Amino acid sequence: MPRMKIEAIDLFYVALPEIKATADGTQDTLLARVRADNGLYGWGESDSSPLVSLSAYVMPMSHVNIMNINSALIGETVETPEDVRRLRAKAGAYGLDVQQLDHAVAAVDIALWDLVGKFLQEPVYRLLGYERSYPKLPYASVLFGDDPDETREIAADLRGRGFAAAKFGWGPMGRGTADDDEALVAAAREGLGQHAQLMVDAGVVWGEDDATAYDRAVRFSNYNITWLEEPLLSDEVDAYKRLTDRKPPVPIAAGEGADFYRSADDLMVNGGIDFVQIDVGRTGGITVCDRICKRALELGVTYVNHTFKSHLQLAASLHVFAGVEKFRLLEYPAGDSPLILGLTAPTGLPVNEKGMVDCPETPGLGVDVNLDTVREYLQPVRIEVGGKLVHETPEV
Amino acid sequence: MPRMKIEAIDLFYVALPEIKATADGTQDTLLARVRADNGLYGWGESDSSPLVSLSAYVMPMSHVNIMNINSALIGETVETPEDVRRLRAKAGAYGLDVQQLDHAVAAVDIALWDLVGKFLQEPVYRLLGYERSYPKLPYASVLFGDDPDETREIAADLRGRGFAAAKFGWGPMGRGTADDDEALVAAAREGLGQHAQLMVDAGVVWGEDDATAYDRAVRFSNYNITWLEEPLLSDEVDAYKRLTDRKPPVPIAAGEGADFYRSADDLMVNGGIDFVQIDVGRTGGITVCDRICKRALELGVTYVNHTFKSHLQLAASLHVFAGVEKFRLLEYPAGDSPLILGLTAPTGLPVNEKGMVDCPETPGLGVDVNLDTVREYLQPVRIEVGGKLVHETPEV
Repeated sequence: MPRMKIEAIDLFYVALPEIKATADGTQDTLLARVRADNGLYGWGESDSSPLVSLSAYVMPMSHVNIMNINSALIGETVETPEDVRRLRAKAGAYGLDVQQLDHAVAAVDIALWDLVGKFLQEPVYRLLGYERSYPKLPYASVLFGDDPDETREIAADLRGRGFAAAKFGWGPMGRGTADDDEALVAAAREGLGQHAQLMVDAGVVWGEDDATAYDRAVRFSNYNITWLEEPLLSDEVDAYKRLTDRKPPVPIAAGEGADFYRSADDLMVNGGIDFVQIDVGRTGGITVCDRICKRALELGVTYVNHTFKSHLQLAASLHVFAGVEKFRLLEYPAGDSPLILGLTAPTGLPVNEKGMVDCPETPGLGVDVNLDTVREYLQPVRIEVGGKLVHETPEV
Repeated sequence: MPRMKIEAIDLFYVALPEIKATADGTQDTLLARVRADNGLYGWGESDSSPLVSLSAYVMPMSHVNIMNINSALIGETVETPEDVRRLRAKAGAYGLDVQQLDHAVAAVDIALWDLVGKFLQEPVYRLLGYERSYPKLPYASVLFGDDPDETREIAADLRGRGFAAAKFGWGPMGRGTADDDEALVAAAREGLGQHAQLMVDAGVVWGEDDATAYDRAVRFSNYNITWLEEPLLSDEVDAYKRLTDRKPPVPIAAGEGADFYRSADDLMVNGGIDFVQIDVGRTGGITVCDRICKRALELGVTYVNHTFKSHLQLAASLHVFAGVEKFRLLEYPAGDSPLILGLTAPTGLPVNEKGMVDCPETPGLGVDVNLDTVREYLQPVRIEVGGKLVHETPEV
């Protein structure tokens, strides 16, 4: 077998020309391209502040526990899943005292799995030990409208587009009265019809107030919701425990705020959540998410992706749990930002004629990046420290 | 009472001309100076990659949960402890999806407590609700020598300098055999003499291997050590639980890897540690550390600072637990980097004639920054994104 070494890690900050102060995470992103010395390459994406995560790849050394990701990886041999895991651990040790490490390294970890999949001619889910993949039910992930009427319209539109499941979140939820909150959920249900699955994302709006979260869970249970998501801050695991100890009449979901393995495990074991929602672009990449997925299986918690980025990210998310039949729901970004479907080429992950999404069976992640989109929305970055250039955006 | 608003946040990346790949965290730092519109100012420091943390102050907006620290704070009124807590929460909400937030915001949170202390003419510990402060026993925090002989010399030198307590860490610990590890601890004890308190910092070297950690705890117990620190990775709380469930014959310490409240709480409640070591420059600043300190009191865990930065950071660390008589040990950076004592003026926190360190009783943190040192070691930073300047180092 030919040897393969990491030759370069190219980082691209892409963003729409105008960024709005809404909860829409598809307005910018950070892409990493790993180039190997044999001409192969892999792509990955972080869900994070592009500038902050990019800095973790190029920061000057502070001491032996703050050394940048590039210095941990460039020149290393990477040919097998074990290599990827070893390099993920190495980058973690080099950046032990850099909090942003998990968000930042996610992009290159994903890219390394993509690269090794291409090298071994296997889809990533097989590299994770699964024999086959199972189709997933995509749920559209959208924001509540500004009021019940707008929410109803958004829901009706999704129904028209054939979605059998949808999640509404953020916006006015939790900002008005209990009746206002309930009216939003009622409108979403009305627009979707009685048969679609409906999820509600409260966007951590009740902080550590488990009593209010419980009250809303009771109210929302009248609308047959699949889960109530992030009623409380990720950090407030005791509040999650108080809430789940009350036995709310709807399942509780959380996990997108978990930056590393233990945070997710803590929410499952000590917070008592029913669904763990993990973002592969935040929680350290495929390597760590695979561990969380297998832990969820052990604990009887349902794993589901959190994805509010491109279909490159969606593919990375999907490979993690594609092999587990009973983890059936797939968060499916359904907005119209060109950084969702436009970032992949020739296409992203389509919904098939049965309304399901299949995991790609081609080597690696099974999607490629649209370089034209990268070029169109590229934000060149230049960083100087102490008069020295530490980063400049490379050629696309 | 006159009104006071935040006019500017000045960030300074300072570093020694040459950075070595050792576990010495006093080779660079990030300082934040908050200037108010009434001419008062406060200083704070983060223990982190200066570039990555600085980026969180100036990063372009990605969406409503990724907005930079400057935009959360500049122009805000800050006059009371409640204001500082409100602004800490606001910066946390603006940066909800930025992992680095806790490390980064620490500097400005500390600076805000310093500022409000000066405004209200009270030392910070009184603003945290304590009537008086108690002197602390400083322990020198040093690295193991490359072998037992060098370690013995370092210890003898500390003894000669009058330290009644010292911690040795990192270096060759855990890299050789069990006998090698024990020889290092034996040498440290020999050099310090029988009366000094000795702590051992294993620098997470045994990962999640609680069996080896337990074996070393047993061996080291022959040398009367006050604690065994970070035998395992911060993230591996289950491994800490397995270790503490074995009832090792020496107390277990951890916590410097806790980036936010829950991580520290998790180690205390679920990891079963005896000492919780919190770095005010990492764990979100004084506001969050105060919460952890009060939680430790509740749980019967001993709070101790983790500090491997300047005496500005040391002062911030000390105010957090100065008011709790039974939290008696103070990690006291004892190296010779000019970024330890040299960063404060006219002096840092001296050891008094009884060998103890008193908390300053002057308003705020009670230490000021030596601007000459800042100028001498300043690393100007310049960041451009999309052709626009997003940060340039201001005048010292």
